Amino acid sequence: MPHTFFCSQDLYESSDIVLLGIPFDATSSFRPGSRFAPDHIRMYSEGIESYSPYQEIDLREIAFYDAGNLEGPINNFSVLRTIIHTQVKEFLTQGKKVFALGGEHLISLPVVEAYTSVYPDLHIIHFDAHADLRDEYLGESYSHATVMRRIYELIEGKRIYQFGIRSGLRQEFEFASQFLHFQPFCLNAEVLRRVAEALIDKAVYVTVDLDVLDPSYFPGTGTPEPGGATFHELLQALFTLEEVNIVGADIVELCPPYDHSDASTMTAIKLIREMLLLMGRSKIE
Amino acid sequence: MPHTFFCSQDLYESSDIVLLGIPFDATSSFRPGSRFAPDHIRMYSEGIESYSPYQEIDLREIAFYDAGNLEGPINNFSVLRTIIHTQVKEFLTQGKKVFALGGEHLISLPVVEAYTSVYPDLHIIHFDAHADLRDEYLGESYSHATVMRRIYELIEGKRIYQFGIRSGLRQEFEFASQFLHFQPFCLNAEVLRRVAEALIDKAVYVTVDLDVLDPSYFPGTGTPEPGGATFHELLQALFTLEEVNIVGADIVELCPPYDHSDASTMTAIKLIREMLLLMGRSKIE
Amino acid sequence: MPHTFFCSQDLYESSDIVLLGIPFDATSSFRPGSRFAPDHIRMYSEGIESYSPYQEIDLREIAFYDAGNLEGPINNFSVLRTIIHTQVKEFLTQGKKVFALGGEHLISLPVVEAYTSVYPDLHIIHFDAHADLRDEYLGESYSHATVMRRIYELIEGKRIYQFGIRSGLRQEFEFASQFLHFQPFCLNAEVLRRVAEALIDKAVYVTVDLDVLDPSYFPGTGTPEPGGATFHELLQALFTLEEVNIVGADIVELCPPYDHSDASTMTAIKLIREMLLLMGRSKIE
Amino acid sequence: MPHTFFCSQDLYESSDIVLLGIPFDATSSFRPGSRFAPDHIRMYSEGIESYSPYQEIDLREIAFYDAGNLEGPINNFSVLRTIIHTQVKEFLTQGKKVFALGGEHLISLPVVEAYTSVYPDLHIIHFDAHADLRDEYLGESYSHATVMRRIYELIEGKRIYQFGIRSGLRQEFEFASQFLHFQPFCLNAEVLRRVAEALIDKAVYVTVDLDVLDPSYFPGTGTPEPGGATFHELLQALFTLEEVNIVGADIVELCPPYDHSDASTMTAIKLIREMLLLMGRSKIE
Amino acid sequence: MPHTFFCSQDLYESSDIVLLGIPFDATSSFRPGSRFAPDHIRMYSEGIESYSPYQEIDLREIAFYDAGNLEGPINNFSVLRTIIHTQVKEFLTQGKKVFALGGEHLISLPVVEAYTSVYPDLHIIHFDAHADLRDEYLGESYSHATVMRRIYELIEGKRIYQFGIRSGLRQEFEFASQFLHFQPFCLNAEVLRRVAEALIDKAVYVTVDLDVLDPSYFPGTGTPEPGGATFHELLQALFTLEEVNIVGADIVELCPPYDHSDASTMTAIKLIREMLLLMGRSKIE
Amino acid sequence: MPHTFFCSQDLYESSDIVLLGIPFDATSSFRPGSRFAPDHIRMYSEGIESYSPYQEIDLREIAFYDAGNLEGPINNFSVLRTIIHTQVKEFLTQGKKVFALGGEHLISLPVVEAYTSVYPDLHIIHFDAHADLRDEYLGESYSHATVMRRIYELIEGKRIYQFGIRSGLRQEFEFASQFLHFQPFCLNAEVLRRVAEALIDKAVYVTVDLDVLDPSYFPGTGTPEPGGATFHELLQALFTLEEVNIVGADIVELCPPYDHSDASTMTAIKLIREMLLLMGRSKIE
Repeated sequence: MPHTFFCSQDLYESSDIVLLGIPFDATSSFRPGSRFAPDHIRMYSEGIESYSPYQEIDLREIAFYDAGNLEGPINNFSVLRTIIHTQVKEFLTQGKKVFALGGEHLISLPVVEAYTSVYPDLHIIHFDAHADLRDEYLGESYSHATVMRRIYELIEGKRIYQFGIRSGLRQEFEFASQFLHFQPFCLNAEVLRRVAEALIDKAVYVTVDLDVLDPSYFPGTGTPEPGGATFHELLQALFTLEEVNIVGADIVELCPPYDHSDASTMTAIKLIREMLLLMGRSKIE
Repeated sequence: MPHTFFCSQDLYESSDIVLLGIPFDATSSFRPGSRFAPDHIRMYSEGIESYSPYQEIDLREIAFYDAGNLEGPINNFSVLRTIIHTQVKEFLTQGKKVFALGGEHLISLPVVEAYTSVYPDLHIIHFDAHADLRDEYLGESYSHATVMRRIYELIEGKRIYQFGIRSGLRQEFEFASQFLHFQPFCLNAEVLRRVAEALIDKAVYVTVDLDVLDPSYFPGTGTPEPGGATFHELLQALFTLEEVNIVGADIVELCPPYDHSDASTMTAIKLIREMLLLMGRSKIE
Repeated sequence: MPHTFFCSQDLYESSDIVLLGIPFDATSSFRPGSRFAPDHIRMYSEGIESYSPYQEIDLREIAFYDAGNLEGPINNFSVLRTIIHTQVKEFLTQGKKVFALGGEHLISLPVVEAYTSVYPDLHIIHFDAHADLRDEYLGESYSHATVMRRIYELIEGKRIYQFGIRSGLRQEFEFASQFLHFQPFCLNAEVLRRVAEALIDKAVYVTVDLDVLDPSYFPGTGTPEPGGATFHELLQALFTLEEVNIVGADIVELCPPYDHSDASTMTAIKLIREMLLLMGRSKIE
Repeated sequence: MPHTFFCSQDLYESSDIVLLGIPFDATSSFRPGSRFAPDHIRMYSEGIESYSPYQEIDLREIAFYDAGNLEGPINNFSVLRTIIHTQVKEFLTQGKKVFALGGEHLISLPVVEAYTSVYPDLHIIHFDAHADLRDEYLGESYSHATVMRRIYELIEGKRIYQFGIRSGLRQEFEFASQFLHFQPFCLNAEVLRRVAEALIDKAVYVTVDLDVLDPSYFPGTGTPEPGGATFHELLQALFTLEEVNIVGADIVELCPPYDHSDASTMTAIKLIREMLLLMGRSKIE
Repeated sequence: MPHTFFCSQDLYESSDIVLLGIPFDATSSFRPGSRFAPDHIRMYSEGIESYSPYQEIDLREIAFYDAGNLEGPINNFSVLRTIIHTQVKEFLTQGKKVFALGGEHLISLPVVEAYTSVYPDLHIIHFDAHADLRDEYLGESYSHATVMRRIYELIEGKRIYQFGIRSGLRQEFEFASQFLHFQPFCLNAEVLRRVAEALIDKAVYVTVDLDVLDPSYFPGTGTPEPGGATFHELLQALFTLEEVNIVGADIVELCPPYDHSDASTMTAIKLIREMLLLMGRSKIE
Repeated sequence: MPHTFFCSQDLYESSDIVLLGIPFDATSSFRPGSRFAPDHIRMYSEGIESYSPYQEIDLREIAFYDAGNLEGPINNFSVLRTIIHTQVKEFLTQGKKVFALGGEHLISLPVVEAYTSVYPDLHIIHFDAHADLRDEYLGESYSHATVMRRIYELIEGKRIYQFGIRSGLRQEFEFASQFLHFQPFCLNAEVLRRVAEALIDKAVYVTVDLDVLDPSYFPGTGTPEPGGATFHELLQALFTLEEVNIVGADIVELCPPYDHSDASTMTAIKLIREMLLLMGRSKIE
């Protein structure tokens, strides 16, 4: 079984993309366990082919370096925030694109912080079941339930595009409608295509909370939320971004202890394969 | 974790709706365990938001009283029948609407018996995978497989509307076609809309056997029957009843021992939230 | 609980169809366990009705003989190949149609070998997630990953129709496009209908690798591959074959150890019921 | 996989012992599911050798007929009671010894009723975690929690020997101390040996509720009760009965839905093998 | 199912003992989930009898008040510490004994802090697999792996008695040998009896990390450590404390997501029953 | 999480011991899956401390090189045999001791073949539930059920010591009694101590089939066999070999798909830690 994603042996120097495991889940309020996701994703990647018949490229044609997992105090976010921020920034200043594997959604905050220091005009496309726009949650400012609010505060204006949200407080839905580009409930491919066109010359970061998928397609997550997207809808949504300049991405909230048949892990792997190909394909075309 | 549904602390006196757990499953012929459903539903309700972005109402705006669970001899239906009937009738005569949480589908019989004594013109909308129209099953007249036949005998004429049925004896399909309003296989929103219009001035009881959902959406049930509705289809079907006067409802056949990822429990919770809002929204509009 | 499929007590002599368990999975490279499928299928068949409301026939109106399981050395394919081939050929020469229950997909090879000796013009309809067209896999010529290549070599020309393939090497996709009738990704009912018409006077063998279904519908398989068909799509695909002369069939790759809720087993059972009815209905019409 | 216990093909006529599945569990108050035990026991018996190195006999040297499972209305004990009683009595009058596979413990009552009609001086050795001596439970006289009280009422005087009891009401412990031979908590081999000697010329029925074992050894049961016997202690206890004339036996309360690793099923199988050998060995010595 | 432990309806005023759920597990470094323990313990307590045949007392003869669960920010220990400390101190100043249900072991620190402010000469008996004596862990001073070191710092001299420790750094074993009463590996009843005598006039707090049990007896814990005590050994160890003045206690580290058969939950319940009886029995004698 | 056992970063050159994963299980006749064991063992080794309080050595004081896993055709034993034999022999000729991680027990055969070519007087200590002494199984000479017979044929005279055997054919028990040193059922420490003394100047290979443990201690194995050793008994048995010159070892038959709580994996890890320390301790003393 592989110890890097798809047994990648690409070197750091020759890779445009760095895959980085960030296995933390301390603010998970319902069911923790996403800390185990990066290693499950690597271990089971032998069960998926490296060739994508959708994009007609083989992952082996794209160079990516699997940097393993970050380490740090699992329940001290202020320390972790610095560790993540520092590491990601180092990769960025060396010209890499980062693909982060969570862990819980809060890990996106320090990753995006690093990105905004290098890409001041960063735009964000966000797929999720939950708005994550609370100002605080259980008395805390930094939580999986507040992460998009904190990211909103980082970047000016309407640079966040949310898709698939189907759960939140009334205030979160109102906030999103007013301050973000907000397309709740579904992953409307037509809207996505227009967004992709509008962002054609922007640096774009894509953050995928896997619970955007319906629990039938993705039971292995901490907070399953019925009524979500099918795998096919999410795949098509991602493919609308084909011409977009994706400078970074993350995929979060796979929770292996609840993935009894491993099908959610397989789903995550296939999505990461397709996203890596989207990020790397410009190089080989 | 909550010990009432969504931590409700509404009082009986000030509530229009009473939530009542009826944790019995003794006639389950294949895989018992739905007796555990009411408490799992309450316990995991902390994982779902109280706000419905579909109906744009918060469950906290609706007063409902969680009356806990009925107790009685688990495998003596004739005693249980009296206990259930008596309790539900008491609630009804005090002007409440009852939302019953099964347990197996047979619990609907004494609930409906109580209703027909108060609402002699009661109409029933029934979502299910199985017709439940046998005259007897394994030598018994009272069983989860005969419950709709017994209910049919309670009320005259064509006052039962069945949706989603995809399993039964040939005789059950013939009986349903002849004596009920019968829309097998799917939850046709157009047909439902017409039914809703026709019933606009009727007292309507809605009984949801959760196995009407496809097992991909709802594996945690005693008798999973492939080929069912998606969560979205069931949700849309329920929303066609927005203008209907739903005087009572039940939701049955969640079987927690087979809900390994808890996603079926979450699905039940979200459906109950939406149904409570449908039942209670007239009060707040 | 039944020890034959649907408690069948039909005799060999009076049955057109023979159901044969072939519980072998030694070449499964990812997650073995499909060896347990035939007996799980029989055991849980009591949870599904014998009447099909789709075809409006009851399985009890079709005579089929459940021949139990083949026995042999579980990890010696060359011996097994002979055992399977010999047994199937014996059934065929006695005028039976065989319905084989895997086990892994490699078991289709000796079954088809027996068929080609009796039906030299055999055509094959193949539903699967994986092309199974490698020339060798892990150094072996005979494997679940090579089975369709070996079958291709058995029969001349374009007599294989593949549907639903969404995983494989680039070379497999190119091979299939060039040498087979190849309809990847989906189960296009329109295309299937045209195929059915074209094959109207042919002897057709149908092989169903259950992982053609999406893992949401069928998590209980060795190599779940996201992005597959819904149960409804597969059922409709099978129904396009209503007029086709199905002389034999198999259904493979149910892996009970990963079917925690038993819903995949129920799905397999329902598909076998419908396929048996398709094979046997000409007799009763 | 076998469809009879250890693939037995012994004929009824030539067998002294009849193995009878009685798959009922309707009074299980905590976690039902023991209805699935007889078939799981048969199916997994291929994982255990037929040779006992303890008794140095092979099960194949003992003739036993596997009569399959009784059928009847699953939640109507008064009908079941008659069905069980009638069948067991028929076997007894034809000179057979019966080995019953539960199901829940209540099934022992009609079995013993049949025995007492043939063996008026029957003595009973009972291994269990729970005294099962309540006079009623949840308002019912016939329940897994009252079964030994009902059996006590059947037979006069001190003819019941209870071992291993570690759970019950204060009244049950007092009743057992006063009216039965009562050796709570442990399976004292010395005491058992004295009991065996005292019963040397009696007809003895052995009833084993598998929860007498500690949950570490037997997690797969409806009501796991910590503090029980080891497998070795139970085996040694049974071996003290080597010279006893065991005319009948049962083994109850294996609950497969909670036996995730199948180890409890394997334990039940091994115990049944040893008990069958104890019952049958006199014939071959 | 009960929503208080053993359905207790005892009032606060009339109870000597207060049961308090503290469902936090944020520092769990390996497998989190003990946050779900208090509610699982309450829910499944219906599966265990209230009568103890060991102590010959019924839990109903002891008055204890189930105060439900503390709430607070799940991953901010400094806030939680204050919440726990404040609540426990309030109970103590009102003359109650507290029985705390974790959660992870770190929750014992603020509980003991509250105790030392009321009982300056508090002695502690600690059952555990792990020494928990690190000075810091993953860069943090407050962690399940440092909790006994922090408690050691709270109280002077040799007032901590550790039993059952079988895992730790070399430094932890050396520290324990030098500064604590340290009886590693086993629960030596003879030693415990001498400790009990020595502490006969002391206020004693008992903290039970359930992983002191061998994983065969207790698989449902975050960090299973093979080689531990049997259930019987732990029970006997507790009974040696019969004459000791137990003024407070906790039981921690049941992790329900890994307790697939619920047997670990049942074990925790039975131990809590016996410990409550030990704490309360002086009142009724 | 670690990708080598205990995150070992020891170099090949400086290590006496080489840890080698051999993830094959194709002849498993009952429940396959031990192929996943080596990687699960590595992944979960972070949950166990590196310090052994039993031997008072830290694994970090012993140099061992984790060579990862062998690769080859999973169900072609004749090819695998050569691959394993060649690799192990290479390690031996370079002066290393090999610790092999199965996989199924058949992998011990080529490992031992390599050893006998270097150590012609090799002695073998074998812990197992099953004798594995059949001459053939399911028609095959090479199988997990024949492996010790094949090893017996490799080495002359009474150089195999079997402990713990409690399952087999009558012929296997007779064969073992006659031709091997055979101590069935238990791990008699006294006998082991005498064996250790007798072998004090021999090169000894230790093979541990983990099903020698009782299923209560080790449910996660392909063929659980009730009545086995406790963890403590196996640990003590291994410690009797402290002075023995263990030149090689293997540990086989952990089957992760059946290890739902991961406790069996933890048990395997702890045993490997102790065995590595036994093999390496002479170097540091």
